[in-house]
Amino acid sequence: MKQLQSYISEHKDRFLNELFDLLKIPSISADSAYKNDVLKTAQAIKISLEKAGCDRAEICETDGYPIVYGEKTIDKNLPTILVYGHYDVQPPDPLDLWTSPPFEPVIKKTEKHPDGAIFARGACDDKGQMYMHVKAMEFMTSTNQLPCNVKFMIEGEEEVGSANLATFVKNNQEKLKNDVILISDTGMIANDVPSITTGLRGLSYVEVEVTGPNRDLHSGLYGGAVANPINVLTKMIASLHDKNNHITIPGFYDKVENLSKEERAEMAKAPFNLENYKKALDIDAVYGEVGYTTNERNSIRPTLDVNGIWGGYIGEGAKTVIASKAYAKISMRLVPHQDWIEITELFKNHFERIAPKGVKVKVTPHHGGQGYVTPINSIGYQAASKAYQNTFGKTPIPQRSGGSIPIVALFEQELKSKTILMGFGLDSDAIHSPNEHFGIWNYLKGIETIPYFYKYFTELSK
Amino acid sequence: MKQLQSYISEHKDRFLNELFDLLKIPSISADSAYKNDVLKTAQAIKISLEKAGCDRAEICETDGYPIVYGEKTIDKNLPTILVYGHYDVQPPDPLDLWTSPPFEPVIKKTEKHPDGAIFARGACDDKGQMYMHVKAMEFMTSTNQLPCNVKFMIEGEEEVGSANLATFVKNNQEKLKNDVILISDTGMIANDVPSITTGLRGLSYVEVEVTGPNRDLHSGLYGGAVANPINVLTKMIASLHDKNNHITIPGFYDKVENLSKEERAEMAKAPFNLENYKKALDIDAVYGEVGYTTNERNSIRPTLDVNGIWGGYIGEGAKTVIASKAYAKISMRLVPHQDWIEITELFKNHFERIAPKGVKVKVTPHHGGQGYVTPINSIGYQAASKAYQNTFGKTPIPQRSGGSIPIVALFEQELKSKTILMGFGLDSDAIHSPNEHFGIWNYLKGIETIPYFYKYFTELSK
Repeated sequence: MKQLQSYISEHKDRFLNELFDLLKIPSISADSAYKNDVLKTAQAIKISLEKAGCDRAEICETDGYPIVYGEKTIDKNLPTILVYGHYDVQPPDPLDLWTSPPFEPVIKKTEKHPDGAIFARGACDDKGQMYMHVKAMEFMTSTNQLPCNVKFMIEGEEEVGSANLATFVKNNQEKLKNDVILISDTGMIANDVPSITTGLRGLSYVEVEVTGPNRDLHSGLYGGAVANPINVLTKMIASLHDKNNHITIPGFYDKVENLSKEERAEMAKAPFNLENYKKALDIDAVYGEVGYTTNERNSIRPTLDVNGIWGGYIGEGAKTVIASKAYAKISMRLVPHQDWIEITELFKNHFERIAPKGVKVKVTPHHGGQGYVTPINSIGYQAASKAYQNTFGKTPIPQRSGGSIPIVALFEQELKSKTILMGFGLDSDAIHSPNEHFGIWNYLKGIETIPYFYKYFTELSK
Repeated sequence: MKQLQSYISEHKDRFLNELFDLLKIPSISADSAYKNDVLKTAQAIKISLEKAGCDRAEICETDGYPIVYGEKTIDKNLPTILVYGHYDVQPPDPLDLWTSPPFEPVIKKTEKHPDGAIFARGACDDKGQMYMHVKAMEFMTSTNQLPCNVKFMIEGEEEVGSANLATFVKNNQEKLKNDVILISDTGMIANDVPSITTGLRGLSYVEVEVTGPNRDLHSGLYGGAVANPINVLTKMIASLHDKNNHITIPGFYDKVENLSKEERAEMAKAPFNLENYKKALDIDAVYGEVGYTTNERNSIRPTLDVNGIWGGYIGEGAKTVIASKAYAKISMRLVPHQDWIEITELFKNHFERIAPKGVKVKVTPHHGGQGYVTPINSIGYQAASKAYQNTFGKTPIPQRSGGSIPIVALFEQELKSKTILMGFGLDSDAIHSPNEHFGIWNYLKGIETIPYFYKYFTELSK
């Protein structure tokens, strides 16, 4: 592609400043207190799509937060790429662990990002990675090198389960018609080890409530005589894993895709250093399902994790109380062939069944989604692979990710097209955690790589 | 006692209004945000003691909240009664479960209190019960019927472990010298079944912290591959009880006082209706240590309860995070002969020992105290029993309480005198819970009964 390098180096500072402006808006979709900020971000995205050369861009209302849509059609006979991303972010708490305010982006150097990284909530997930596509689009249109048609669909509810995206996609199949879907909402192994995510885990996220006595009780007068909802909840959660860290929910593993020795051997080739992994997390040992490696545990195996737990007195000092209620948020990561609705049902039935007498249990499903696998022999994957070879000088490694982008399975089902997951972040970028960041090098490398995907995908589609 | 009934009915409204004024001050010792209110309450108590006829009252500074001391000496040759109580209260949360604001006392009728009960935090524990003694004192002095010397020691840290009381008592043995200690900080079986508490459980209160990875992690990228501190904490807590709900900490039961068949049979005579008990708490079954009745489980047996637990994302909506840390507040109720310091040590060692690889565990002792037993053949108990017979028309039942007043054991050790626990509250008064209340009938009956204790104790001491 002509002028690509020079265009990026010329506009680099502006690319950063524009992203900073987006990162300054706390678009936290999980917390209704930030509603106006989320809506404000949608407006900003719409304007940026118009500036990047879309023929038109619009705010599409939903029952939740709006979806920003934009498109540019140059020739109906050419292929169409649909870019998906999201403008909402995870809540930033625990705030006190951030070394700089989450919505005041700053650049700091890190061991993995010697050229500096942008520190802010959403820097990598997904404002930074989503905006790479907007800037790549700007380059292609402003230099008249856009080789095919393009559509953008940027939503504001990804971090809370994309509750309204499915309806939008179902109701706009013609509008969203495409030949391939392109998403940058995943990571790669390392800056010198490019990889493309070919698998995603599904998700089932539930909230449980255990109710004991109808009011908080004095732990001296009632302690030992009534079921303590917190003690009971800990027993129930503990029982969800056996001593080998297998999940004990009946039927949970029935449909799990079992990889062949060969496939597992192929996976094992990805560079991984256990000592560095433990050092980076400051843990003395890894922990997980017996019989699988760390990389297998967090990609090809389903998991069950408590994401939050609370009950009783959690303030300063001591309170000798037996709480009336205890709560937990629990999520299960699922692998291909596990159906999230079925798994949610299995969990609900099992959890209600194991409740001891003396308590009442309520299980409320939050959201979920199916897992997904991209075939590496597809045109989309081949085009992506060539693009990376061009800009990284290496063939990218196909990699299963432990994360979930539930709507990817939905896209295939509704739009009948495959999704290519070109992620440029690193696992160490602390997405969903305090001090989330995104390397400047990665940000620019993404902007540089994306146009080549357009080029090769158009050529391979002929 | 002359004029007792008439004095009470004449001053009843004032007795209530004065208590209301005390209840309006949120003297929450566990939360430093209320420091000024706690101090303000101490001042109010000092003034009320002076008004009640003490020769002198003073605010005694400690390293924490002050102790209010007051005394009236009529004759060095007469016995001296030391009244202990506390002016601090438990935190009121969960606030949303209160039917009226915790620090805006109101009178409402209840099934057990047809004449009305005072609803407010501290109404029963312990402002209401402590103030009965102040008003009884007022009656005896204003009608010249005080039969002996009296001393008051009202502290402001009972709800947080009386951290500074021990030092105060040790340093003021002469000042606090007495023949019997009188406390109303317990309950009785029912308004028509008076009882006197002859046993208290000890307490060990600890806080635990489990640390996994050095930061919060994305549950998709790391789920299943690292120890999740919340899952680990639930496993560790669950393991503290076996399937018979015995506590599994090695050595925990070594010194537990085992009651004889006869003693247990005596206890079993106390009226108790399991169906009403379950109905009052809206539970379908009781729960506890196999081999013991409900009344035994919450009085003569030690227990371990989680009083609070927290970790991860507990806000609105969903966050797919693996927390870096998880916490719990855990208290153990102890029975006579169990030493709380030794038990705390046993817990700490055990909890640290059962931590799996991949996490770090920290156990922080909060506070604690020893259990206590009052001999029913003591002069003090006999005087109290006669007082109840006078005002209730029935002989009170000696009863073991599951609650803890750690300083009672300390008093015996330092002041060499026995403590009489004349409690006028009911278990259903919801102390430490939302909607704590204290029956008006009980409040006035306490004021009526206390002077007779003074009378009989003085007579029996001759």
